[in-house]
Amino acid sequence: MRSAYLPSAIRKLVNELSKLPSVGEKTAFRLAQHLLSRDPMDIIELEQALKNARERVRFCERCFAYSEQELCPICEDHQRDDSLLCVVEKPVDVVALEQIGGFTGRYHVLHGLWSPMRGVSPDKIKLPDLLQRVEKSHSSDNASVTELVLATGTTVEGDATAFYIAKHLSHLPAKVTRIAQGLPKGGELEYADESTLRYALEGRKDIDVRE
Amino acid sequence: MRSAYLPSAIRKLVNELSKLPSVGEKTAFRLAQHLLSRDPMDIIELEQALKNARERVRFCERCFAYSEQELCPICEDHQRDDSLLCVVEKPVDVVALEQIGGFTGRYHVLHGLWSPMRGVSPDKIKLPDLLQRVEKSHSSDNASVTELVLATGTTVEGDATAFYIAKHLSHLPAKVTRIAQGLPKGGELEYADESTLRYALEGRKDIDVRE
Repeated sequence: MRSAYLPSAIRKLVNELSKLPSVGEKTAFRLAQHLLSRDPMDIIELEQALKNARERVRFCERCFAYSEQELCPICEDHQRDDSLLCVVEKPVDVVALEQIGGFTGRYHVLHGLWSPMRGVSPDKIKLPDLLQRVEKSHSSDNASVTELVLATGTTVEGDATAFYIAKHLSHLPAKVTRIAQGLPKGGELEYADESTLRYALEGRKDIDVRE
Repeated sequence: MRSAYLPSAIRKLVNELSKLPSVGEKTAFRLAQHLLSRDPMDIIELEQALKNARERVRFCERCFAYSEQELCPICEDHQRDDSLLCVVEKPVDVVALEQIGGFTGRYHVLHGLWSPMRGVSPDKIKLPDLLQRVEKSHSSDNASVTELVLATGTTVEGDATAFYIAKHLSHLPAKVTRIAQGLPKGGELEYADESTLRYALEGRKDIDVRE
C-alpha cells in the first residue's frame, strides 16, 4: 500500500496482517478493509483472543503439546495408554491426530526435526527429553513405553529423525514403529512418485474378505 | 477445531480468525499456530495495530474516504482539481484508483450501491450527500463540479446507481461520464461474455499511428 494518502493506522495494520503466512499485501488490505467495515466489537474480540492466546497458551511440561496448564489434558488423562507413545514434530500434529481419533496412547512433540543441513542438532529439539522420558519409563516398574510410534513426516528430515530415535532406543525392550507410507486416499498410480509407489508396493497387505 | 483437548484460548483465537473473509477453520488454525510459534512481540504488534486502526480510522466528513482527521488528505489537498469528481462504491476503491495515479480530481464514496432487491434505498447510502455536494458546488461561484466520473462497478447495481445519479444531476451544466467497459488487459475474445464483447465493440477507438 504505497498510496500516500492512506491513513497510517490502516497502513500499519496492513503491514502486520501481511506478516501472516500466505497473506500478501493485497489480501492483507482486503482483511483490514473487512475488519474496519464491521462492528468495532468484532475487532475488540479479535484483539482479546490474540492477547488471551499469547498470555495463556504454553507447552505441556511433559509432552510439549499446547497447554494452558503445567500438563496438557492428554497427559492429565488417566485413561490414556502409557505404554504407547506417539512422536510428532509440531504441536499442531497432535491436533491432527486427535481429530481422527482412535489413538489411545500419549504424545511427545519434538518441536523440530534433526537437520544437520540446517544446523539443527538433536539437542536443539525435544529429542533428549524424549530419550530420557522413554528410558525413565523403563527404569521404573510401572508404565513402561512398549511401543514408540514415530509419526514425523515422510520427508528426508522426518525419516532421519525417526531413524535417529529408533537407533538410540534400540537397547530398550520397546517396539519402535513408523507410520505407514503409501498412496494417499484418492491417489492414482500414474501421478504417484517412484518412492511413494515403492512404499505402497512393499507395504502391501492381505485383503480381508471375511464377512 | 473440535478436538476436546485443544486449549480454549487457541480455540477462541481460531474462531475469531475464521470470521475473516476467505479464512476457513483450517486456515484459521494455521494462522493461530503461526502466531503462537513466533515472538510474542509480533502478536502484541498485531493487537496494537488492530486497536489503533479501530480507534483512529474514520471517514472523511466531505468525501467519506478513509481518514484519520475530519477531512482526508485528498480533500485537504489544494492542488486537486475541484471540477472533477469521481464517485465510487467503497473506501477501498479510492485506494485502488490512487495507486494507478493520474486522476487529479476529488472523490465521493457512496458506501454502498442503490439496490431495491436488497432493500438499499438511495438515502441509505451517501447518495443524498453527493447530490447536495454537486448542487452546492454549482450554486457558488467558484469550484463547480464540471465532470462527474461514475466509477461504480459494472454490475447491475453499479450501473443502476450510476444511472440514478446521472438522471438526478441532469439539470446541472456538468458532464456525467461512466468508466469504460471492455475486454480486460490480457483478455481473450473467446472467453469474454456477450455483454463485455458488445461493450468492447461499441466502445472501439481509432488507433493512433502517429510517431
